[in-house]
Amino acid sequence: MNLDRSPLALPFPAIPPIGGVTLRVARARYKEWDRCDLTYAELAEGTAVAGVFTKNVCCSTEVEMGREQARLGQARALIVNAGNSNAFTGYRGREAVEQIMAQVAGHLHCEPSEVFVSSTGVIGVPLPKDKAREGVAAALGAPPCSWEEAATTIGTTDTFPKGAVAETIVGGRRVIVAGIIKGSGMIAPDMATMLGYLFTDAAVEPGFLQQCLSAANESTFSCITVDSDTSTSDTVLAFATGKAGNAPLASFDDPGADAFAAAIHDVCRQLALLVVRDGEGAQKLIEVRVTGAVSDESARKVGLAIANSPLVKTAVAGEDANWGRVVMAVGKAGEPADRDKLSIGFGGIWAARDGLPLADYDEAPVAAHLKGREIQLEVDLGLGEGRATVWTCDLTHGYIAINADYRS
Amino acid sequence: MNLDRSPLALPFPAIPPIGGVTLRVARARYKEWDRCDLTYAELAEGTAVAGVFTKNVCCSTEVEMGREQARLGQARALIVNAGNSNAFTGYRGREAVEQIMAQVAGHLHCEPSEVFVSSTGVIGVPLPKDKAREGVAAALGAPPCSWEEAATTIGTTDTFPKGAVAETIVGGRRVIVAGIIKGSGMIAPDMATMLGYLFTDAAVEPGFLQQCLSAANESTFSCITVDSDTSTSDTVLAFATGKAGNAPLASFDDPGADAFAAAIHDVCRQLALLVVRDGEGAQKLIEVRVTGAVSDESARKVGLAIANSPLVKTAVAGEDANWGRVVMAVGKAGEPADRDKLSIGFGGIWAARDGLPLADYDEAPVAAHLKGREIQLEVDLGLGEGRATVWTCDLTHGYIAINADYRS
Repeated sequence: MNLDRSPLALPFPAIPPIGGVTLRVARARYKEWDRCDLTYAELAEGTAVAGVFTKNVCCSTEVEMGREQARLGQARALIVNAGNSNAFTGYRGREAVEQIMAQVAGHLHCEPSEVFVSSTGVIGVPLPKDKAREGVAAALGAPPCSWEEAATTIGTTDTFPKGAVAETIVGGRRVIVAGIIKGSGMIAPDMATMLGYLFTDAAVEPGFLQQCLSAANESTFSCITVDSDTSTSDTVLAFATGKAGNAPLASFDDPGADAFAAAIHDVCRQLALLVVRDGEGAQKLIEVRVTGAVSDESARKVGLAIANSPLVKTAVAGEDANWGRVVMAVGKAGEPADRDKLSIGFGGIWAARDGLPLADYDEAPVAAHLKGREIQLEVDLGLGEGRATVWTCDLTHGYIAINADYRS
Repeated sequence: MNLDRSPLALPFPAIPPIGGVTLRVARARYKEWDRCDLTYAELAEGTAVAGVFTKNVCCSTEVEMGREQARLGQARALIVNAGNSNAFTGYRGREAVEQIMAQVAGHLHCEPSEVFVSSTGVIGVPLPKDKAREGVAAALGAPPCSWEEAATTIGTTDTFPKGAVAETIVGGRRVIVAGIIKGSGMIAPDMATMLGYLFTDAAVEPGFLQQCLSAANESTFSCITVDSDTSTSDTVLAFATGKAGNAPLASFDDPGADAFAAAIHDVCRQLALLVVRDGEGAQKLIEVRVTGAVSDESARKVGLAIANSPLVKTAVAGEDANWGRVVMAVGKAGEPADRDKLSIGFGGIWAARDGLPLADYDEAPVAAHLKGREIQLEVDLGLGEGRATVWTCDLTHGYIAINADYRS
C-alpha cells in the first residue's frame, strides 16, 4: 500500500556533518523492493554509546544483544535493517545478527560488541543471512550519504523522513547533537518498531551519556503513544564521537554538562514528536498537559491513560470537546484522583472546574481550537505539584484502513 | 444516529416470570425522544441484594451510593434512567438521586436505602429533577411489562435488547436466575456504561449472594473488553426475592448452593458475552484463551492485553492471522512470559510453538476460521498452570464512525 504523506509532516532539517560519523546506505533487498534498506553508520574510534530499549518482554535478539553491548559503552558502527524485524525467530535470527557483527568488525578491525544492529519489519521471519551479507558488503563500500538519505533508509512505512538537530557550547567548543528516527509504534501491518539514533561530536563518558539519554527518554519517548501497542524492537541509541575536542563530560559538575544534557533532551523531544506526527492515520497532534497530580510519574500515567483512550482520540478526530470522556480516562488510570477537584480544558479554556461543568462555558473558542492540527488538552487534578506532558495523535479511519483493510 | 442491529446479535430468550419481581417502564423524556427511558423493578419484601461496581475513581453518584446500599443487603426497588448518566454533576446530581429514592420509598413504605438507582447516558448534565419526578410517578402507576421491554428500556444506543436465563434446583425447589443488561463499554458519543441486573426467586442471604456474584464477575464481566475504556457508571446488581421457597442459602455448605452459584455464573457469562456481541462496530466475536501462565490472574492480564490491542483487533477485522501482533501484545502485558516458550494458535491450529513459527504451518484452515463470526485465539505461555478466557470484538471502521464521525 502507498501511504499519503502525513498532514502533520515537517520538512527535514538542515543537519551539518558531525565529526567522526560517516553514513552509508545500500540495497539488501530484504523485501521485494528496489529501495535502499540497509543503513551503515561508521563511528570514529573512541565513540561512547548509550541506549534505551523496549520493555516488551518478547523483545527481539537485536534488543537483547544491544542492551548488553550498550553496557560496555563503546561503539564503532551501527547497522539498521529495514523490512524484517528478525523478532520471534529464535537461534536462526541470532545467527544472522552475529554474522553482521562479525562482518563489520572484521572490516573495521574492532570488537563485534562495538557493532550495533537494529532490524525493523515483519515479525517471525529470520533475517536472511545471504541478503544481509551482500547488503553489508555493499554498504561498507558505498559512498557517504546525507542525513536525509539515512533517515529515509531506516524507514519502513513512515510517510516522511524524520531528523532533528541542536547545537550548544561545551567547554568552549561548539557541539552538535543530531538524530534520526523511524516509526510510530506499529506503523503498518507487520511493520513494527520505533528506532531512533542520536549522534554528537561531543566527548562524553559512556556513563554520563547514558544518564543524559535515560533522563531525556523519561519525558520524551516514554511520553508518546500512538495506539498503546509496544513494539518488540523499540531502540534509541546515542553515539558520542568526541571529535568536537571538548574535555570529556563525565558528570553534571563538568562545565557545559547542563547545556549538553539540554541539547540531548531537545533532540529527543523533537524526534519523539516527529513519530507522533507520523502516527497511523494521524490528522491531529494532541498534547495532553496534566498538572496537580500527586507526583510527576502519576501525572505521566494519567496523561497516558488519556492519550491511549480510543474514546478521547476519536472525540478529537471528530472535533468534539467531549470532556466527559476525559473524566472517564482520568478515572480509569489507576492513579490518585478526586472527581470533585478535577478541571478539564481545551486550548487554554476550562470546560469544567472542580468537578462541575462551568456555568458560563463558551464552547465557540474551544470548537475553533479543535478544528486545528495541534490540539491542547489540559487536565488539573487539584491534588499536588506533579505534572507531565504526553503526546499522541487522533484515532481515525486511516488507522483502521492501514491495519485492517490491507493484508500483510 | 441510527445504528444497524449487530451482526452478532442473538434473539431475546424466553424468560419466565420470577416471583417477587414486577417490571414497569415509563417515559421520563430525559432526551428529546418518545421512547420509554425509565425502568422500575419492584421487589418483594425481604429481597436480598449484592452488587459489583466500576473501579473508575471518577464514578457517578449512583455508583457511590449503590456501593453503600448494597452493603446493607436489602432491596425493594430498582430505578434505571436512560439518556443521562448523571456522572460528574456534583451535589445537584446527588439531589436528583436522593429525590428518586425518597419518592419510591414513600410509595413502597420502605427505607430509601432499599431503592437502587442507576443512570446511563450523557456525562456532566445533572439529572433533571422535574422529569425524574414525573417519570417515576408514571412508572409507579404503570402496568407490568415484559423482560424484553425492560431490557429495551434500559438501553441507550444498544442495537439489540439483551437478556439471559438459567434454571436449577435448590433444596428441592426449582429456582430461576434471569438477567438483563445494556451497553458495551462506552457504546456511543457520551453514552457510557454497562448496567446489568440479575433477578432470582431463590432465597439467599445477602452475604452469600455477594460471594456468588463477585466470584462470577471475576471470570465474566471482568474478562470482557470492547475498547479498554472503563465507564464511570458500570454496575451489576443481583436481587434474590426468596419466593421459590427454598431454605435460604447462606454458604457453599448448604444443599443446592453449588447449583445456585453455577446458575449465577451462567447468567453472568451469557450477559457479558451479549455486551461484546453489541460492541461498537463489532463484526466478529473474539475469544482469547490463555493457558500456561504463572497464575489465573496473570493469564487474565495477558488475555486483556491481547484483547485490548488495537493491532490484534484490526488484524482480526482484516481476517489476518497476524500472530506477530499477538507476540507483541503478550510481551507488553507486564506479566511473566518467555518468548522462547510461547505458542500461538487460531481456531485450534498452532501457528507458532515454543517461540518459533511452525515449519509445516498450513494457513488455509486458519484463514477459513478467520472468515467466520466467532474467532478463537489460543496462547500458551508454557510457564505454569494459570489459565483464563477473555472476550472482545474486532476493531472496525464502525467504531470510528460511531465515535468520531457523529457529534454528540
